[in-house]
Amino acid sequence: MAEECVPVIRYEELSEGPVVVLLDQRRLPHEEAELVCADVPALVEAIQSLAVRGAPLLGIAGAYGVALAAARGLDVAEAADQLAHARPTAVNLAYGARRAEAAHAAAVRSGAGAPEAAARALAEARALHREDAEASDRMAGHGRALLADLVPGDGLRLMTHCNTGRLVSGGEGTALAVVKAVHRAGGLRRLWVGETRPLLQGARLTAYEAAKAGMAYSVLTDNAAGSLFAAGEVDAVLVGADRIAADGSVANKVGTYPLAVLAAHHKVPFVVVAPVTTIDPETATGAEIEVEQRAAHEVARGPWAEGRPAGAEGEAVSLVPAGAAAYNPAFDVTPAALVTALVTEEGVASPVTADGVADLCSASRGKASRSANGMMRS
Amino acid sequence: MAEECVPVIRYEELSEGPVVVLLDQRRLPHEEAELVCADVPALVEAIQSLAVRGAPLLGIAGAYGVALAAARGLDVAEAADQLAHARPTAVNLAYGARRAEAAHAAAVRSGAGAPEAAARALAEARALHREDAEASDRMAGHGRALLADLVPGDGLRLMTHCNTGRLVSGGEGTALAVVKAVHRAGGLRRLWVGETRPLLQGARLTAYEAAKAGMAYSVLTDNAAGSLFAAGEVDAVLVGADRIAADGSVANKVGTYPLAVLAAHHKVPFVVVAPVTTIDPETATGAEIEVEQRAAHEVARGPWAEGRPAGAEGEAVSLVPAGAAAYNPAFDVTPAALVTALVTEEGVASPVTADGVADLCSASRGKASRSANGMMRS
Repeated sequence: MAEECVPVIRYEELSEGPVVVLLDQRRLPHEEAELVCADVPALVEAIQSLAVRGAPLLGIAGAYGVALAAARGLDVAEAADQLAHARPTAVNLAYGARRAEAAHAAAVRSGAGAPEAAARALAEARALHREDAEASDRMAGHGRALLADLVPGDGLRLMTHCNTGRLVSGGEGTALAVVKAVHRAGGLRRLWVGETRPLLQGARLTAYEAAKAGMAYSVLTDNAAGSLFAAGEVDAVLVGADRIAADGSVANKVGTYPLAVLAAHHKVPFVVVAPVTTIDPETATGAEIEVEQRAAHEVARGPWAEGRPAGAEGEAVSLVPAGAAAYNPAFDVTPAALVTALVTEEGVASPVTADGVADLCSASRGKASRSANGMMRS
Repeated sequence: MAEECVPVIRYEELSEGPVVVLLDQRRLPHEEAELVCADVPALVEAIQSLAVRGAPLLGIAGAYGVALAAARGLDVAEAADQLAHARPTAVNLAYGARRAEAAHAAAVRSGAGAPEAAARALAEARALHREDAEASDRMAGHGRALLADLVPGDGLRLMTHCNTGRLVSGGEGTALAVVKAVHRAGGLRRLWVGETRPLLQGARLTAYEAAKAGMAYSVLTDNAAGSLFAAGEVDAVLVGADRIAADGSVANKVGTYPLAVLAAHHKVPFVVVAPVTTIDPETATGAEIEVEQRAAHEVARGPWAEGRPAGAEGEAVSLVPAGAAAYNPAFDVTPAALVTALVTEEGVASPVTADGVADLCSASRGKASRSANGMMRS
């Protein structure tokens, strides 16, 4: 598949200097346009306007952004700060930015010159990118095995929300990577794609990926999910995560929590798929997760008007009376008790408990330190 | 308020013949345009394209449509059939059409000429219209008293879905009539308005009515409701109904059932407000309710594009990849066990049981037969 797809993110050295090139996700599914970011403010703007989105990919974007700042001789610490705070809920963004910053700082401390320090930051960003692709593959494997246990037999009808595929990832994604693995093995009967208002990442992006992969899929308004559960048409729900607290609470795209409540009510497995970097041990409980409140116009305007993508400036038609207030949280928080299983590249926690989450983090740290030792030796 | 509002439906005798004039709800909130229907196919088209919608108002439209057919010398039985079947789930539509048809038929049987029979059909339609306005007032009173019991104190934060106000009614509506009564008494802190995809009756119509009434309100995407429940920001949910089965199961706009599940999960009262005509004793259980599946383009297209209202023909921008399938049920069914109370003009059933529903129907039938006797005597 990858060969026929426009890369979602890439770092390029052009004659006029290095750039981060993004597939502009606001223009999908109708246009595969690339957005070239030559400096950090452009990349921050791309992140805030959702031209690039999705927790793992944001981490990669943050890391490439720091590498870009270093290569262009800008203040790397300032760039890392700007990138880390571009969106408040996405912990991966800060993780990626800080990781490239740390590699750069370590190089500087060890006496490297600016070009070599910049090269180290870029190598770290590329390593993160590669690790993320490998993590996708491992999540897909763990998730597929879990589904075989939870819902034996073929012909699965899986429901997902938002977009969690290659458009959020250095690889195949998180929840959608699992769906793709099931599909490739011939085990998918239908993918139910919640449209994911207000910005319609499901209708636009997951449907785009599902169509490219040749899946049988149907798009539904988010509020139609209840009817599918009631009709017994959902075998499992698979979603991603933007941040996971130490107690296993999951912050994810708004609309995730209602699906978890419905799934629990109908005794349907509700599975969260996310890399271990999504876990934030510093956040003890779900109540501590800061939820980004986004602009009212996302709700008030149609998602598309006059061909303009959501979030773009312009002449979008308002759907509501003039002066209407809107409540527009970007995320909601699902308590661990409603999550059947948490699938990571390090394995599966089920039930999802603080101890299980801590074990996944430990496994990851152990591997990271072994990997770091390996790098130091090589 | 009524004096500054364009009438939602009216029957007029123009020099070129009688017409049914509708406030075209597809053009709200930006334009208060009227749609003139001079024959039954035009009215059926208006019903199917949702220029006129909402269960009680559909009953009135059906009755006026039969009166229109009679006044224009068309086949009344055929007109009643066409109107009764214009939308499958709305029982009121058939009720209104059949009631005007029966008045017409009774007049014919008693020897009345065509003009007098047509006048009887019109009188029956006007009676239904007036009764509906009175029923709204009684529902508002019962509902307000119920809320005072269920959620003592002022400053209520009420959530609603779809549109259930004067735009669906001969009067102030059903669920929104209760909200208005609470608001007029100074007891409303905020109305949470679910946008109600795909056609956004909440964002466009309920917000329009809330703004006209001077309420504090916020519009939200349907999938953001879960966050409000989790934050303890919802004191009660008030919704209407399109059909209520004998067992108390409630068919209503898609998205109602997920709200009922969320409300039950959070122990928030979930109240259905509907006239007794919404109850269909012939439908034994919720499983027997036929749910209308609507066209995929409602999901696939933006609700507005290039200024065109949803459902209109034209150049709407597709949100999804070419060829995407959609799942688009118009309604969902909420079991009685999830409904805290059913508020009708005849009183309240709580808990909602088959016996309670039957009692409400009996009370209504007793009054209807007294009313019919009174009419015969006058």
